Amino acid sequence: MSQLTFWFELASTYSYLSAMRIDDVAAAEGVEVVWQPFLLGPIFAGQGWNNSPFNIYPAKGAYMVRDIDRIASGRGLPFAMPKTFPANGLKAARLALIGQSEGWIAPFARAVYTAQFRDQANIADDDVLIAALEEAGQDAARALKAAGDQDVKDRLKQNTNSAKSLGIFGAPSFTAADGELFWGDDRLEQAVAWAKRR
Amino acid sequence: MSQLTFWFELASTYSYLSAMRIDDVAAAEGVEVVWQPFLLGPIFAGQGWNNSPFNIYPAKGAYMVRDIDRIASGRGLPFAMPKTFPANGLKAARLALIGQSEGWIAPFARAVYTAQFRDQANIADDDVLIAALEEAGQDAARALKAAGDQDVKDRLKQNTNSAKSLGIFGAPSFTAADGELFWGDDRLEQAVAWAKRR
Repeated sequence: MSQLTFWFELASTYSYLSAMRIDDVAAAEGVEVVWQPFLLGPIFAGQGWNNSPFNIYPAKGAYMVRDIDRIASGRGLPFAMPKTFPANGLKAARLALIGQSEGWIAPFARAVYTAQFRDQANIADDDVLIAALEEAGQDAARALKAAGDQDVKDRLKQNTNSAKSLGIFGAPSFTAADGELFWGDDRLEQAVAWAKRR
Repeated sequence: MSQLTFWFELASTYSYLSAMRIDDVAAAEGVEVVWQPFLLGPIFAGQGWNNSPFNIYPAKGAYMVRDIDRIASGRGLPFAMPKTFPANGLKAARLALIGQSEGWIAPFARAVYTAQFRDQANIADDDVLIAALEEAGQDAARALKAAGDQDVKDRLKQNTNSAKSLGIFGAPSFTAADGELFWGDDRLEQAVAWAKRR
């Protein structure tokens, strides 16, 4: 079965758009999705940014909100900017990696995104992560403890380095098995079609 | 008839994609296109950039070329990066404004884009502009002389200021009569649909 890797950052608005539909879009074409969390922070830092470009460039930030409003509304998806943006998605990403090993990454990630971009919660808060873990059917205390393990921390660093090596500079991104890179929710269909052909 | 304003920069790769199809896409929906040239340079300068972001951020630049390769090839459109990128599009934009007044802006702009992104020419060269003017059926010497008029220079400055006031930060952009802003060739269909509904 063809595979497509979905590179997402849990604090990213456009990643939210893809997370809520990628499993359906890919399944319709018989493509399997590998959910791969990474951090944009270190990648943005490499470009000289210490903040989201949507905060650094206000016109771009204002446009992003309006653009996502229109797209989300067209898909019947709620969207509201959280009070803190961008959130620190570090702990959420480490939890997602545990979910990747154990098979609950997608429902957990969707619960995190919904808390953030529907309910405007801060995903750096343990309470918010606990609720998302429970929504994904997990023992939250166990998962939070495991998220502090050194190998989980290392895997996340490695993921972010892999993303950089693949030429990734933003989220969401999608890579096919041959390394072909697609950036942005608006390239999802193209990425799925590419993965399917190979 | 509904109108959509097409804000383009003659040195912009993604503007090329839209310029080659916007008249057809809009006509199919009964929407009239107003071609409006502007300069990205002053807008980028306001964001602290003295070059194209595709040069400042190499990963983004490499991706842009690949992304346009894929899209252009899907549309049967040639695409090759010019030797000089970004070109200085100042004189081409002034000529385009004359074409706007006289009704030949679209064929002229398409000839400029084709010279640049198919034949890899530098659109700052008079020879290239003369060929594009002739392709648009114009007396090149007359148009080049008129491009030096103060009111043409002023109109281009005013266009760039208007773009900024509308929240434009990149090209291509599209605005509807109610001020609604869309950015990027991948938002063209959405922009046309918006203009049509209003």
